[in-house]
Amino acid sequence: MMQDHKPMRVAVVGLGTVGTGVIRLLDANRDLIARRAGRPIEVRAVNARDRNRDRGVDISRFDWVDDMMELARRDDDRCCGRADRRVGWPGPALARAALEAGKPFVTANKAMLAHHGLALAGLAEKSGIPLKYEAAVAGGIPVIKGLREGAAANEISRVYGILNGTCNYILTTMEKEGRDFGEVLKEAQELGYAEADPSFDVDGVDAAHKLSILASLAFGTQIDFGVRRYRAASAASRRRTYAKPRALGLSHPAGRHGGESAQRSVPARASGAGAGQHPLANVDGSLNAVLAEGNFVGSLFFSRARRGRRADRVCRGRRPDRHRAAMSMAIPFAMQVAQLAQAPQGDSGDNVGRVYLRFMVRDKPGVLAEIAAAMRDAGVSIESVIQRGAHEDGSVLLVVVTHDSSRKRDRASFER
Amino acid sequence: MMQDHKPMRVAVVGLGTVGTGVIRLLDANRDLIARRAGRPIEVRAVNARDRNRDRGVDISRFDWVDDMMELARRDDDRCCGRADRRVGWPGPALARAALEAGKPFVTANKAMLAHHGLALAGLAEKSGIPLKYEAAVAGGIPVIKGLREGAAANEISRVYGILNGTCNYILTTMEKEGRDFGEVLKEAQELGYAEADPSFDVDGVDAAHKLSILASLAFGTQIDFGVRRYRAASAASRRRTYAKPRALGLSHPAGRHGGESAQRSVPARASGAGAGQHPLANVDGSLNAVLAEGNFVGSLFFSRARRGRRADRVCRGRRPDRHRAAMSMAIPFAMQVAQLAQAPQGDSGDNVGRVYLRFMVRDKPGVLAEIAAAMRDAGVSIESVIQRGAHEDGSVLLVVVTHDSSRKRDRASFER
Repeated sequence: MMQDHKPMRVAVVGLGTVGTGVIRLLDANRDLIARRAGRPIEVRAVNARDRNRDRGVDISRFDWVDDMMELARRDDDRCCGRADRRVGWPGPALARAALEAGKPFVTANKAMLAHHGLALAGLAEKSGIPLKYEAAVAGGIPVIKGLREGAAANEISRVYGILNGTCNYILTTMEKEGRDFGEVLKEAQELGYAEADPSFDVDGVDAAHKLSILASLAFGTQIDFGVRRYRAASAASRRRTYAKPRALGLSHPAGRHGGESAQRSVPARASGAGAGQHPLANVDGSLNAVLAEGNFVGSLFFSRARRGRRADRVCRGRRPDRHRAAMSMAIPFAMQVAQLAQAPQGDSGDNVGRVYLRFMVRDKPGVLAEIAAAMRDAGVSIESVIQRGAHEDGSVLLVVVTHDSSRKRDRASFER
Repeated sequence: MMQDHKPMRVAVVGLGTVGTGVIRLLDANRDLIARRAGRPIEVRAVNARDRNRDRGVDISRFDWVDDMMELARRDDDRCCGRADRRVGWPGPALARAALEAGKPFVTANKAMLAHHGLALAGLAEKSGIPLKYEAAVAGGIPVIKGLREGAAANEISRVYGILNGTCNYILTTMEKEGRDFGEVLKEAQELGYAEADPSFDVDGVDAAHKLSILASLAFGTQIDFGVRRYRAASAASRRRTYAKPRALGLSHPAGRHGGESAQRSVPARASGAGAGQHPLANVDGSLNAVLAEGNFVGSLFFSRARRGRRADRVCRGRRPDRHRAAMSMAIPFAMQVAQLAQAPQGDSGDNVGRVYLRFMVRDKPGVLAEIAAAMRDAGVSIESVIQRGAHEDGSVLLVVVTHDSSRKRDRASFER
């Protein structure tokens, strides 16, 4: 089948989960992909840090290239960028070299996009060469396509979801099994869900990278990522007694939900049960899911029901000499870079919402009165209070849920 | 903004929910759409059956065209096809005339696609002009794009979902409020969820149209719709005591889930509660949702959380003289028509699954024994039985849930 069409030749850089996943996928679904793409897709060359590591796939059939930059110069039709999540020199340099050489570049590296995405998108637009990144957010769930094209005619007022499977796995396991953060984290590391240095996931940096991409697509703003201005919460270590705790990334544009624009990665509570249950209450473990609220379509929900291999996206076949004609393929973000608005920075203290507070207090008279008075004086109104029996050490668990309040006022009540 | 780009001119045929929805959307999100599409989108001409009906939108600013076929001949860049759900002469003829005149054609008419989609897709491919239909299935949920492009590298083993909001509204309302089919249907008609002649929805024909499109996209098979061979179940009138009844459209290719390929529209039960709950158990009322099971991505879930306006999809700006170059835009279905496999027809009697049976029986000795014996003799094994107290007229409700069994055997037990 398809023997009248020359194969599309692909180079794969990085042979971790994503890189070997792409190779496995192209092996397993070879014929189907050839029918869909209009011609076969063939991996020709690979590069990775360690040539000899056992990866469970045979890479001896591919050309091994020591210098990844060589891949941008070879006559392969496409490059598939590194899957490493940390931004570093090779990522953007390779992407730039590939686009400049007229090779479409596909990447799952959200860190690179969060930091260098705008510049790369500008280059892709200018040269008319596609830059694609569907697997950078929420793995196999086509949420990039869904926001960029599917919901393109809608004004999006909020985009949020479970973007980091590691955090969500830790939070939901802690809840289900009543175990401690450190213990569950260690287990997640053993299962390969968390890395040896977990801070990238647990401090919310990975979710923030992804959120900056989603926010740009949803609101037509420039990608704006900066950990300094970004209130990353140590997602898994706090608020562990929620009924349905979820590791949430949430963003809204200026003029919505409390004034200025926001990008936040926080532990939050998916409320309700039965018919009124929030869709995210069903998304536990290491799963991802994204919701986007549009002014015509309402609330779109994209999710997947179990962990699969990532980077299973294939661009349709397209002859090289036709790249330049296909303008819309060469607009990587929501619109042309020149059309993207600057993302104004909000003060997260203006965010309004209910807050769940958890205190371990001494079991002595007046403690609740003291806390309640501090909150009253800061203008924070209490919705409900739960107090559990004393521990062996004499401490008592006190849980307070507030009515809608701003983060600024919450903080003021603590500073008393 | 965007004054350096000529607007894309659109003709809208049919001014019902979809047509007026498109006009409202283009009015409300004008600037955003211009930024995303690369140029403004302007409705120029309209056609509908009744010029003077009050539709809540001002159509006096558009050219009124009496003969819709005239729209294919005007100098508008695009045509937006009728939204009427019933296939008839004007739909495919207009689509053909538009494509032949070099005008991209966008339609929400699933009936037309189910019957004429293959021929139109062949024409679109040959002429290189886009034929688009995202709003034809599941309204604003980008499931066409999700299956056609997002999951393109996956072999899909099953696609299913709630495709007809009317049936699902009736089923879920009957359950929640303990009311009768006829009564809820009448209410749905008053609310505008159901048409005066409800058979198109209630007999499963509308869901079957949509399912034939999804199955073609998911499995790479030719669109194959035929009510004669299609086992449409009167969705809303049967099995009304389910815990979580859902109006389901379900399809799988040959070699999966019981041998031959199938397309079925049936009332079914979304099982579970809490963490193990099926995603469709959350989708009640008139909502839509689709699941697709891929061999790498796992189970993808697309849904939306409240009823919005449909047809809110916009194709990106693309200059007319570039149409021919953009081959992939001009492949309307999963792959080129020549690559689509024929859909083999299965016998729905081979379908295997648990079945819920509801009997109203005379309250006299031996009735249960008689039913149980008939099922035993046909080889159908019973999982559970519920019997409720006698009605005033002496009849008793008897509910039987079987273990996995084929429809053939179920039928045999009834024929005894």
